[in-house]
Amino acid sequence: MSGLAEAAGVGGPSGNVGVSGRGVARRDGGRRRSGRRGGDSGTREAILAAARTRFGDYGYDGATIRGIAADAGVDAALVHHFFGTKERLFAAAMQLPILPSELLAAALAAGVRDPDQSLGEHMLRTVLGVWDVAEMRATFLGLLRSALTSEQAAGMLREFATETILGRIAEVAAPGPPGADGQFRAALVASQVLGLALARYVLKIEPVAQASTDDLAAAIGPTIERYLTGEIS
Amino acid sequence: MSGLAEAAGVGGPSGNVGVSGRGVARRDGGRRRSGRRGGDSGTREAILAAARTRFGDYGYDGATIRGIAADAGVDAALVHHFFGTKERLFAAAMQLPILPSELLAAALAAGVRDPDQSLGEHMLRTVLGVWDVAEMRATFLGLLRSALTSEQAAGMLREFATETILGRIAEVAAPGPPGADGQFRAALVASQVLGLALARYVLKIEPVAQASTDDLAAAIGPTIERYLTGEIS
Repeated sequence: MSGLAEAAGVGGPSGNVGVSGRGVARRDGGRRRSGRRGGDSGTREAILAAARTRFGDYGYDGATIRGIAADAGVDAALVHHFFGTKERLFAAAMQLPILPSELLAAALAAGVRDPDQSLGEHMLRTVLGVWDVAEMRATFLGLLRSALTSEQAAGMLREFATETILGRIAEVAAPGPPGADGQFRAALVASQVLGLALARYVLKIEPVAQASTDDLAAAIGPTIERYLTGEIS
Repeated sequence: MSGLAEAAGVGGPSGNVGVSGRGVARRDGGRRRSGRRGGDSGTREAILAAARTRFGDYGYDGATIRGIAADAGVDAALVHHFFGTKERLFAAAMQLPILPSELLAAALAAGVRDPDQSLGEHMLRTVLGVWDVAEMRATFLGLLRSALTSEQAAGMLREFATETILGRIAEVAAPGPPGADGQFRAALVASQVLGLALARYVLKIEPVAQASTDDLAAAIGPTIERYLTGEIS
């Protein structure tokens, strides 16, 4: 596991996915809910079921908290109370063990990166650290599988990833007003990272499947760094 | 479509996948069979059905022509007569519109590459040219989909790709006796190429989904070139 994932409280010796005080949220919205039990669970389940249907039918961008609340027969304020943001609700509905935006924020936080590593290598190591946790990897591959077998799921995931991950990477890659260049760079990063997951975990192409984090960081880190900051046209 | 795919007779204005004299085989084994029709088709179908089952059950490496012939109730010589090599039989059973090894041979043939393009860029343009043909793209994505939803299919495809594509790329990347370095380079190339397919055609992440071949070649070609020939450790 990477130092970052560890710092963010992701996984641990027991293989469980935990939460630390570093800002990585639990899927139920975090500490805010920790004192409550029992009676709310039927309502929570109804909201999550409505969310899964709405996100599927309308995509991530098109689904609204208001619409999901209406489908679940509750007030929108209750959905906000239970889940906070749309991203958190989506993460809970899809059983994501971590919020991508918070993982990304932790990875980009000042002082986290080893000064000997480029940003590209650091980000790749972060992703590999997440995938080292079995539950994270399983969730990620499950989403990828659903995207490959359903146009609807692919659209939903594209919108979610664009909103919560790629937009932020685009900002990092090309600081300043949002522009096509940053988006292209973020999409290029996504293409290499997704392909690595496919080769390493699904097709299990050797020696990439068995390669160490260090070997992959040395080989692929410079690719991510170039996509983020180098000459690409 | 890339000049290479065109030269190899892949696709055309009608969208059909044709065959030229450049050595890219039809899925029935090519010209050798072109004069025969009718009576053999039941036998051919029985062989293809047996091949699909055997490749699925034993993988690409484990399935033998002899075993497939036995399952189909015919002599192994007849399978060779109909389909030639194991690669051709696999391609026919999986309805691949093209033989990977022959496409690769055509791409690597002397004089085919524009001297202004690196080998990495040339290979990427070749792949993009193949994917520009709807039938090729559909077949490729169908195989990818099956790999993501079935461990068995993933293993079969890994073995097929290793044997017919990655081994040859490894030789090109690291000429000399087969070694881990060439295999690592080939697997890295595969990771970027597979990820590009996922981002461009499945998840449709913009602007990679709509990007021109030239833009992708400029951005990703140097990645492939570095994986093939550059510093990766």
